[in-house]
Amino acid sequence: MLDFIIMNGTLITMEGRGVGVLEDGAVGVKGNRIEVVGETSEVVKQYKAHRYVDATRKVVMPGLIDAHIHTGLGILRGLSQDTDQWMQKGLWPFMEVLTSQDRMIGSLVNIIEAVKSGTTTFCDYDSPMLELVKNHTLIGTRARVCEMINEMPDDLSGLAVGELYPFDPSIGQQKLQANLKLMEEWHQRENGRITCLMGPQGPDMMSKELLLEVKALAEKYDTMIHMHVAQGDREINQMIKRYGKRSIPYLEEIGYLNRRLMAVHLTEATREETHVLGKSGATMILCSGSIGIIDGIIPPAAEFLEVSDHLALGSDQAPGNNCNNMFNEMKFTAILNKCKAKDPKVFPAWKILRMVTIDAARALGLGHEIGSLLPGKKADMIILDLDQPTMVPLVHKPIRNLVPNLVYSAKGSEVETVIVDGQFIMENRNLLTVDEKHAVSQAHQAGAALAERASSLVDLDTPLMTMMQQGYL
Amino acid sequence: MLDFIIMNGTLITMEGRGVGVLEDGAVGVKGNRIEVVGETSEVVKQYKAHRYVDATRKVVMPGLIDAHIHTGLGILRGLSQDTDQWMQKGLWPFMEVLTSQDRMIGSLVNIIEAVKSGTTTFCDYDSPMLELVKNHTLIGTRARVCEMINEMPDDLSGLAVGELYPFDPSIGQQKLQANLKLMEEWHQRENGRITCLMGPQGPDMMSKELLLEVKALAEKYDTMIHMHVAQGDREINQMIKRYGKRSIPYLEEIGYLNRRLMAVHLTEATREETHVLGKSGATMILCSGSIGIIDGIIPPAAEFLEVSDHLALGSDQAPGNNCNNMFNEMKFTAILNKCKAKDPKVFPAWKILRMVTIDAARALGLGHEIGSLLPGKKADMIILDLDQPTMVPLVHKPIRNLVPNLVYSAKGSEVETVIVDGQFIMENRNLLTVDEKHAVSQAHQAGAALAERASSLVDLDTPLMTMMQQGYL
Repeated sequence: MLDFIIMNGTLITMEGRGVGVLEDGAVGVKGNRIEVVGETSEVVKQYKAHRYVDATRKVVMPGLIDAHIHTGLGILRGLSQDTDQWMQKGLWPFMEVLTSQDRMIGSLVNIIEAVKSGTTTFCDYDSPMLELVKNHTLIGTRARVCEMINEMPDDLSGLAVGELYPFDPSIGQQKLQANLKLMEEWHQRENGRITCLMGPQGPDMMSKELLLEVKALAEKYDTMIHMHVAQGDREINQMIKRYGKRSIPYLEEIGYLNRRLMAVHLTEATREETHVLGKSGATMILCSGSIGIIDGIIPPAAEFLEVSDHLALGSDQAPGNNCNNMFNEMKFTAILNKCKAKDPKVFPAWKILRMVTIDAARALGLGHEIGSLLPGKKADMIILDLDQPTMVPLVHKPIRNLVPNLVYSAKGSEVETVIVDGQFIMENRNLLTVDEKHAVSQAHQAGAALAERASSLVDLDTPLMTMMQQGYL
Repeated sequence: MLDFIIMNGTLITMEGRGVGVLEDGAVGVKGNRIEVVGETSEVVKQYKAHRYVDATRKVVMPGLIDAHIHTGLGILRGLSQDTDQWMQKGLWPFMEVLTSQDRMIGSLVNIIEAVKSGTTTFCDYDSPMLELVKNHTLIGTRARVCEMINEMPDDLSGLAVGELYPFDPSIGQQKLQANLKLMEEWHQRENGRITCLMGPQGPDMMSKELLLEVKALAEKYDTMIHMHVAQGDREINQMIKRYGKRSIPYLEEIGYLNRRLMAVHLTEATREETHVLGKSGATMILCSGSIGIIDGIIPPAAEFLEVSDHLALGSDQAPGNNCNNMFNEMKFTAILNKCKAKDPKVFPAWKILRMVTIDAARALGLGHEIGSLLPGKKADMIILDLDQPTMVPLVHKPIRNLVPNLVYSAKGSEVETVIVDGQFIMENRNLLTVDEKHAVSQAHQAGAALAERASSLVDLDTPLMTMMQQGYL
C-alpha cells in the first residue's frame, strides 16, 4: 500500500537526455521515496494508495534546487542594488545593524518565498547556521548547509581599499568550530534532509593553512566544500597581492580542484581557468540575477558547459538579487547568456530546466537522491497549475511548448503543491508547516526596527542614499 | 460625493522627478477621473465617498503601460524560441495554421495575463484589430490600437533569403483601409479608453508612397504612428537593397522622425541613428525580454536615454518572450542594460518604474491622461499586497526599499486590484469583467486544435523540431 499516488498529470521526469515528458503519468510514493513512475492507467492498476491526488491539467516534476542562497540576509531585501562596490557601499552598512534575530526572521520569509515558487532543496550558506537550519527543519525543506568560515575581524572599516585583509587565526578557528559543531549536530539529521558542507567564504578570506584544514575535514566527513571563487576583482587583487596568483591557479596548487568543490560565481574567472575548474570535476554555481544586478556581469557559464555539466543555479541573497525564485534564475540565465553569445540558440529551455533539477542534483552530489522522478529517489516534487494564463495554451505537437513556458513564462506562482521527502509542505498554495502570515508580520516588524537602528546611517555617501535624499526612492 | 476612496495605502504617485512616494496616502475617484490625492487624514476629512477601500500594507500606484504587444499571437506561446531566424523558422510555420478565432482566443488570455500582473494600458499592434479590440472593451482595459499595414502578399514561401519583398499596392490599400475602418469605428470610443493609431509594420514592408499616405492620415486624425524600426538585419538589408539607405536615415528623409512616431525595437540602430531619432521627439519602445530571446541582443536604450526620456517598455508577443508581464520587462530591462554597460549603477529601479508609468504615458502621447496619480487624470490604478513574501519587509529609512522590490523582486502576482477608467476590473485577484476559467479552457481547446492542424508541419527543419524529435522537449 502506497502513501499516495499523484495521477493524470503531465510528468516532467527529468530522466533521459532531455526532460523526460510523460503525458498522463502518475507517481506513487511510500514513506519518503518514489515507488513507481509510469502511465496513470498502469500505475493505478498495479498499486493501491491511502490517498489519490488528481493532477489533471497539472504538471508534476522534481522540486527545484537553489544551489546558493544566503537566507540570513533576507531581511535586507531591496536595500543594496543600483550601486557600485556592492559589498562595501550596499551590504556592509546594513550588516552593522543586523541582529541574529533579524537573520532568523528574514531567513524564514526567504525560504517561504522560495518554497512558494517550487524550491525544495537549498544550499544555504550563511551564519549563524546553527540557528538558521531550524527554519529548514520547521518548514520541512531539504537543505545542504554550512557556516561561513573566514579569518577576518568583523570590523574592517579602517581598511583602505586594496589593502590586504588582516587574518586572525583565532577568528578562523572559532568559525571553523562553528561549522564543525553544525556538522556534528546536524549532518544527516531529519531523515537525511539536512546535510552539512564545509563553508570557507573565499580563497582570499583565510590563510592557506585554514583552507587546507577545511579540505582535510571535508574529506574526513566525506562531504563537499561550498565556496565563493573568483567572485570579484576585489578577491583577485587580494590573491595576487598575497600569493602572486589568481584564485583558480592557487586553488589548483593547493589541491582544491576536484569533485568536492562547489565553486560559486566565477565572475572574474577567465575562459582557461573556467575550463581547468570544470575539467577537475568541480561544480560551478551560477547566480545570474544577483551577479547581473551587483556587478553587471554575465559569468562564464557557457565556457564551463564546454567541459562539464556540473552547473547549478543559485539565487544568492535578497539584498542584491532581490528575490529568491528559481523561475527568475532560469529565465535570466537563458536570456543573459543568449545576449552574451549574441546567439538565441544557446541555453535552450530544456537545458536550463536541467540546471535546477537533475544537473544541479548531480553537481551537488545528490544525483542519486533527488533531481528526477525515478523509483528509489527521495519524493521531492512540485505540482503546477496548467490553467494559469502564463502556461496557456498547452500545445503538445509538433512542438511541445510545456518546458519553454515553464522556463520563459512561468513566474513561480503556478506552483500549487510542494512535497519534500514524501511530506506535503504546501497544498493549494497554503503552507502547511509554518504560519505564513505570522512570519510576514514578524518580518515587517523587524524591518521597521531595522529602519530605526539604521537611521544612524543617514550620512552614508552611497548611490542609494543620494537617490533617497534627492527624492528618487 | 466621490465614488470611492482608497485609503491608508503607500502611494507611488509617479509625480515629481522620482517616484513620488506618499506614505499613508489616499486617492479619491469620481467617475473615471482622480479627484484628490493626499494624506489619508486630509482626504477623508474633506471628502465623502460611496465606497472606502482599505489599503493598509498595500501599494497604490498608476496602472502599468505595455507599449508594444501583439495580443493576437497569444495562442502561439512557447512555440518559437531558442532558434535562429525567429520569424522564418519560429513564427511563420505556425502562422500558416493560425485562424482569426485563434487570435481572438489567444488575445483574451494574453490580456488576462497582463491585467493580472498590473497592466492597464496596451498598445496592441495586430490584426484583425477590428475583432481583437473587442477583447479590450470586454475586459475594460485601456488600449491604443492599430491594424498592421504592409504591402506584401501573405505567402512569401517562394522568396529566397535576402531577396526583395514584392509589393502589391492593392494589398497595401486593403490593409490601410482596415486601419482606417478601425479609426472611424473605434477612435475615442468606450469613454475614450480606446484610441487608434496608424500601424505600418516596418519601413521595409511597404512602398514610400504608402508610408507617406499613412503619415498624412496620422496628421489628419492627429494621432501617432506605431511602427517597427530597425528591427533586424533582415530589415536593414531590405532597406539598403531597395533605397541604398538604412531605416532611420530613410525615415528622416521622408519626414517620419517627429513626436508622432513610436519606433519599436531599434535592434539594429547605431548610436548615431538612435540619437537622431531621440532628438526628433520620437518615442523608443524597448522590448527587452522578447529581443533578448529572439535575437540575443540588448537594444540601444542607454543611447536613447542620453537624448530623450520618451522611452517605454513593451512585452511584444507570446511566441518569443514568452510572457506578457511588465514586471518581467522591468527587471530584464534593468539587468540586461547593467550587463551591457558593465555598470550596476545604470538603469536604477526608480528610472525603470517610470518607463512603465509616467515616462511611458508621455512617450505614447497620453501624459496628460494617465501615468501618474494626479487629480484630473484618468483613474487607472493598481493595488499591490505588501504582505507577499517578495515585498517583505518594507523598510522606509534611511533607504526606502519599496521601488527596488517592485522592480527587482515582484512577479506581478502581488497585484490584487486593478482599476481602469474608474472601474474595478480585478479585485482580490478575481477578474470581474471576464470569465477567466472559460477563457483558459477555450485557449486549451484552441491549442489542441492548433496542434492537430500543425501536425502537417512535422517535416520542418528548425531547431525546435530537431529538439522535439530528439526528445529534448
